[in-house]
Amino acid sequence: MKRYLGLDQWNIIENDFKDENNKVSESIFSLGNGYMGQRANFEEGYSGSSLQGTYMAGIYYPDKTRVGWWKNGYPEYFAKVLNSTNWIGIDIYIGDEKLDISKCDVSEFSRILNMKEGFLYRTFIARLKDGNEIKIEAKRFLSIVDKEIGAIEYSITNLNFNGDITISPYLDGDIKNEDSNYDEKFWDEISKLSEDKNSYLTMKTKKSNFYLCSGMKYDIFKDDTKVKFNAQVNEKEKFIGNTIRLNLNKNEKVTIFKYVANVTSRDVNIDDIQSVTKNILNRAYDKGFYKLLEEHAKAWDKKWKESDIIITGDLAAQQAIRFNIFQLNQTYTGEDDRLNIGPKGFTGEKYGGSTYWDTEAYCIPFYLSTANQKISKNLLIYRYKQLEKAKENAKKLGYKKGALYPMVTMNGEECHNEWEITFEEIHRNGAIAYAIYNYVNYTGDKDYLTEYGLDVLVEISRFWEERVNYSDAKGKYVILGVTGPNEYENNVNNNWYTNRIAAWTMEYTLEVLLKLKDEAPQKYNDCIKKLKLKECEVNKWKDIIKNMYYPMDEKFNIFLQQDGYMDKEQILVKDLPKENLPLGKHWSWDRILRSCFIKQADVLQGLYFLGHLYDDNTIRRNYEFYEPRTVHESSLSPCIHSILASRLGMNYKAYEMYLQTSRLDIDNYNDDTEDGCHITSMAGTWMSIVEGFGGLKVKNDVLTLNPSIPEKWETFSFNIMYRGFLLKIRVEKNHVKISNDSDKEIQVVVKDNLYTILGKKAIEI
Amino acid sequence: MKRYLGLDQWNIIENDFKDENNKVSESIFSLGNGYMGQRANFEEGYSGSSLQGTYMAGIYYPDKTRVGWWKNGYPEYFAKVLNSTNWIGIDIYIGDEKLDISKCDVSEFSRILNMKEGFLYRTFIARLKDGNEIKIEAKRFLSIVDKEIGAIEYSITNLNFNGDITISPYLDGDIKNEDSNYDEKFWDEISKLSEDKNSYLTMKTKKSNFYLCSGMKYDIFKDDTKVKFNAQVNEKEKFIGNTIRLNLNKNEKVTIFKYVANVTSRDVNIDDIQSVTKNILNRAYDKGFYKLLEEHAKAWDKKWKESDIIITGDLAAQQAIRFNIFQLNQTYTGEDDRLNIGPKGFTGEKYGGSTYWDTEAYCIPFYLSTANQKISKNLLIYRYKQLEKAKENAKKLGYKKGALYPMVTMNGEECHNEWEITFEEIHRNGAIAYAIYNYVNYTGDKDYLTEYGLDVLVEISRFWEERVNYSDAKGKYVILGVTGPNEYENNVNNNWYTNRIAAWTMEYTLEVLLKLKDEAPQKYNDCIKKLKLKECEVNKWKDIIKNMYYPMDEKFNIFLQQDGYMDKEQILVKDLPKENLPLGKHWSWDRILRSCFIKQADVLQGLYFLGHLYDDNTIRRNYEFYEPRTVHESSLSPCIHSILASRLGMNYKAYEMYLQTSRLDIDNYNDDTEDGCHITSMAGTWMSIVEGFGGLKVKNDVLTLNPSIPEKWETFSFNIMYRGFLLKIRVEKNHVKISNDSDKEIQVVVKDNLYTILGKKAIEI
Repeated sequence: MKRYLGLDQWNIIENDFKDENNKVSESIFSLGNGYMGQRANFEEGYSGSSLQGTYMAGIYYPDKTRVGWWKNGYPEYFAKVLNSTNWIGIDIYIGDEKLDISKCDVSEFSRILNMKEGFLYRTFIARLKDGNEIKIEAKRFLSIVDKEIGAIEYSITNLNFNGDITISPYLDGDIKNEDSNYDEKFWDEISKLSEDKNSYLTMKTKKSNFYLCSGMKYDIFKDDTKVKFNAQVNEKEKFIGNTIRLNLNKNEKVTIFKYVANVTSRDVNIDDIQSVTKNILNRAYDKGFYKLLEEHAKAWDKKWKESDIIITGDLAAQQAIRFNIFQLNQTYTGEDDRLNIGPKGFTGEKYGGSTYWDTEAYCIPFYLSTANQKISKNLLIYRYKQLEKAKENAKKLGYKKGALYPMVTMNGEECHNEWEITFEEIHRNGAIAYAIYNYVNYTGDKDYLTEYGLDVLVEISRFWEERVNYSDAKGKYVILGVTGPNEYENNVNNNWYTNRIAAWTMEYTLEVLLKLKDEAPQKYNDCIKKLKLKECEVNKWKDIIKNMYYPMDEKFNIFLQQDGYMDKEQILVKDLPKENLPLGKHWSWDRILRSCFIKQADVLQGLYFLGHLYDDNTIRRNYEFYEPRTVHESSLSPCIHSILASRLGMNYKAYEMYLQTSRLDIDNYNDDTEDGCHITSMAGTWMSIVEGFGGLKVKNDVLTLNPSIPEKWETFSFNIMYRGFLLKIRVEKNHVKISNDSDKEIQVVVKDNLYTILGKKAIEI
Repeated sequence: MKRYLGLDQWNIIENDFKDENNKVSESIFSLGNGYMGQRANFEEGYSGSSLQGTYMAGIYYPDKTRVGWWKNGYPEYFAKVLNSTNWIGIDIYIGDEKLDISKCDVSEFSRILNMKEGFLYRTFIARLKDGNEIKIEAKRFLSIVDKEIGAIEYSITNLNFNGDITISPYLDGDIKNEDSNYDEKFWDEISKLSEDKNSYLTMKTKKSNFYLCSGMKYDIFKDDTKVKFNAQVNEKEKFIGNTIRLNLNKNEKVTIFKYVANVTSRDVNIDDIQSVTKNILNRAYDKGFYKLLEEHAKAWDKKWKESDIIITGDLAAQQAIRFNIFQLNQTYTGEDDRLNIGPKGFTGEKYGGSTYWDTEAYCIPFYLSTANQKISKNLLIYRYKQLEKAKENAKKLGYKKGALYPMVTMNGEECHNEWEITFEEIHRNGAIAYAIYNYVNYTGDKDYLTEYGLDVLVEISRFWEERVNYSDAKGKYVILGVTGPNEYENNVNNNWYTNRIAAWTMEYTLEVLLKLKDEAPQKYNDCIKKLKLKECEVNKWKDIIKNMYYPMDEKFNIFLQQDGYMDKEQILVKDLPKENLPLGKHWSWDRILRSCFIKQADVLQGLYFLGHLYDDNTIRRNYEFYEPRTVHESSLSPCIHSILASRLGMNYKAYEMYLQTSRLDIDNYNDDTEDGCHITSMAGTWMSIVEGFGGLKVKNDVLTLNPSIPEKWETFSFNIMYRGFLLKIRVEKNHVKISNDSDKEIQVVVKDNLYTILGKKAIEI
């Protein structure tokens, strides 16, 4: 873990510019508004270490798969998250020298991510080769009110000379993805247009044929006076820009306000794309920078009112949780039900695809408790809509029936191409079933099941039915050749988690069917008919549930991660030489695989999901066995450990894991933040407070809280949305306050006692 | 299996040209002389389905590794077998029309591989677009007397018109590898020279900096008269050729004799390469085509006298064994100890690298029994010389000591990049140890051990020592996370074969050390000192040998392929729908992995190697269990099954497997001959006759034969070289004749009885 950023309640602060940190900072200081986003690249360009990244949600490119050795079943294409038109660019020349932080002396550098108001601010003083000094201030944001709009205020103050400066705002579509498999560029130019101070550039992706029109408009002020100027138009292939040359005397300041609108063919007819862009751009321009920013900040204020978590007594913890919530809100708003939550959000291009099991396992709980339940429902329907593709995917791999959801996808088709993951990490199917349970349990929306959920549950159960096989040797059903959540094991037999979630899926499906038969026989009959569900299938599921094999270790009385796990040399993480960590960077792959070390919660993931079915002692035994063997080299791991530790009263451990999950990117724990932030695991961070320290649970339609507080903290407060209510919870040592923000009466179980809170009232315990 | 080639004692015959067969034929009709080789491409070019391939032994290119997802430990480069200057080219124009079989009517086509004399012959009649008909006859060979020389006799007979023809012999260095990872070309031009009828083209490989100079010279005859002509010189980048235009009347025949010399910087200083090429070329030219061919055929005659196997009563079996012996002799002569035996020899570029465990497991037995023992010794020394690289390889993967030989290599460095193979198919180390045992056992050359062998054995034993771990759960040493010879299982625990060959390596190493200590204490001490062998290491090996875990199945009383194998659904190959085969082409990889189906001999490979340690009943039980589950989708499989079936008296099964191994390419069993022939498995074919039907074994310095003959065969005869003797064996039903071709007395055990054969005498049993 490497901390170089300053601690603050509401801001992420970088005060000392170092090239070696720049890619990490570009990730951390990223901006997004659910519709588009970008890494914290510099407007004036930068020739040092940088990963340029501007992304439009839902715009992807099916890049031809690259493998060493082809395996039957691999997908032909990998849907890449696309780097798209760079619209922040403003080249600055002082005399003939281009401003580039890597080529001049920089002092008083500061980069600030203001999370409260949702903007990025940067300032520095540059001393150029001939001794000329200028001060730069740059502020930009991506409006969460006018989602197509990005705006930049960029000012240059002349500190010590008289001379000319050149300002060149531009739109550059000639960009590439660093992870392009064959060094191909993914965008073609469709058109460009320059009229007065307006410029438009329309690009189209190859193959996937997405259009993106970017329009820019700008004003220039000298000190507080708007400047009239003649702009020279610069056109190159895939590029359009303007050049303005101005005289700037000592102590004068010039400011450019650059407004950009980005409109895609996902929302607009391609024939209208430029005119729509123009209208949106003009509207924003007419509002002006400050008004846009004011509305944007106000909208952020509302978001924070709903989803903020306040921690007192621990600045690092406070900053971190806000960073996590901020990034989650930047990534996905739930407004567009065609979108999902990519693992890097808008902070990097790595991994590709937009949808992983992370969505169901980690993100849905966050959105369930912090937003209108429609958002979680949309995320579930997203998978429902892809059911046919998941059935095709199963067929492709040789299954006669059932659905196997993809490991990574953008449109329902599998993208990933590692056999041990793509073909074998099938537990993802379980998480998709579990999310349905989770949603229905939390919201009480049972209609979801008949309308959408059962279709998915039945097809996943059918998959498991075919995927198990009966072992004569064991006299049990087994699941061979899988990769569990712990990806530091590949192609293992009887991964406990996979076996358990498979059987659980069938249990839950049968339970739902049974209830439906009882409560709504006609609906039940319709469902059976629609799904062509046969008696023999149901019987087979029952038999599998009854006779599923679960590996156990008798000595430790624990669930065994997989067959043969106890044959490994049993070493604990604490006994590893520090320089071996992270193992993923230092050990050969085979060494990792045959070691006992666990990348991320695996058995414990199951005990987290199905925590309502296991007692504390069982969880404790497994936790105490697995935690010391877990290296947490997946971002999805520490949060689960934190939550379980909270449940078990291991307060300090829960806190330690909380810090790791919440500051994973800010402190670059796994030495990989430069690729982008770990967005989906941020929902896990939120869970580790609300479900962990807060002890939030819903069981049999009863909301339960079981709060505990880390020693260092004075208080922590969070809100939860629950069945239309907004509850505010504030936890101190030995004191909990729960406020009902609605007009109705709410019943809550706190530490095993039932409380009723009247409308607009609070209780204190 | 698809048979389209004619049966014949000495020839491979293709009588009906079909484009769809052409790539397969190009592989099968390949020519080689150990120094260079080529696929059976057409001299006049061909625009249909074709894989152009000309290869120079030992010339490779380190192509940048291509993977989907990088794993720690992968090599940076993959040494590709290089397609090099195409020197067979002779473009033919009739009037203005280029001769191209795919673009004219072809009749009376015949392509013949004359294995007795070692040349390729082709003839056909082409009817061109304007009705002109010509007859082509082409004969070519790669001299096994003058190894740098290739020669072509190419004649065109005018059947029905008067007109001009154009002949353009050329050297073309502008070629590529189809398997180039990034579509890069691997050769640069260094120089070209044209003087009179001589042309020289010198090319250099990128990165690896191998030079290849090709020189050509030619004569043209009209009927039997040498023609004087003016040649136009054609030069392009990486290309040099001549064009000769001649008038050819009806019934006239024009013949070009093209001589080519290929010289590389592996043998010659780069400054001299062109002059050396010139000298060699002129010498060959002076001999002339017929004299060169006569000497070449004579040399082949000698080879056949030594290594032929004669089968009567079964033309398909006879043709097949000769094809296998012919290709083996074309691929490797043992004259150059820097070379090894690539899996495709000179018949294709697939797989890359020149050295696999095939050499030790399959090829060494062939060379031991058919050639001077120096050749096998050279193959062993090849690995001895790469010991330091094997130690580096082990270090790279995180081992503290020991040597891990590469899965695929050209120069001792690992080339391959599939984690489940590269890092886990470590049994290859065992085969390298076994080959030392095999060589010493067969030749009695015990000095090899002290001089070279022990170094390799000790380092491999050290590797195993570190690679095992003690399982507290089992109270035994285990080997986790391996891939056995059966590549249809990956990352399994306790592969019986791997555990057994690991322990056996240590057993044999200790046995060798003990004997040395007894017989030559001084040498022993020197060795211990040189190898820094510690008492504690030896003790650890003893402990591992004693406490190695071997998976067993008690119900079937067999060695279990790996932990958990009996949990798989047990289906037999005979019960699979035919259209599912080969599984490798029809099933997804995960389905293959979790099925019980075995790609190639695995437990049975161990029982073949260590056959002297197991009784027939043990072998029978294992054979009867595993054979019905084996799909033989590796070329290395049927021969082992054939040999074991012979041992067990399952004569018909042995014969069936013999046909499969021997006609694997000719009948394209696995639908992949178009990539090249399976050269190394051809040694297995030879073994299935000599060790299988012949029952050849050497044990405690005694040569043993235990002949049996397939029902269909009348007789089969083979020779074996053994400790300086040449024995000729002829087997009939109930009758064996063994002739001693030396002057000395030989003792042989035949079917458990000891016979003594005096010099130049024979015995009949």
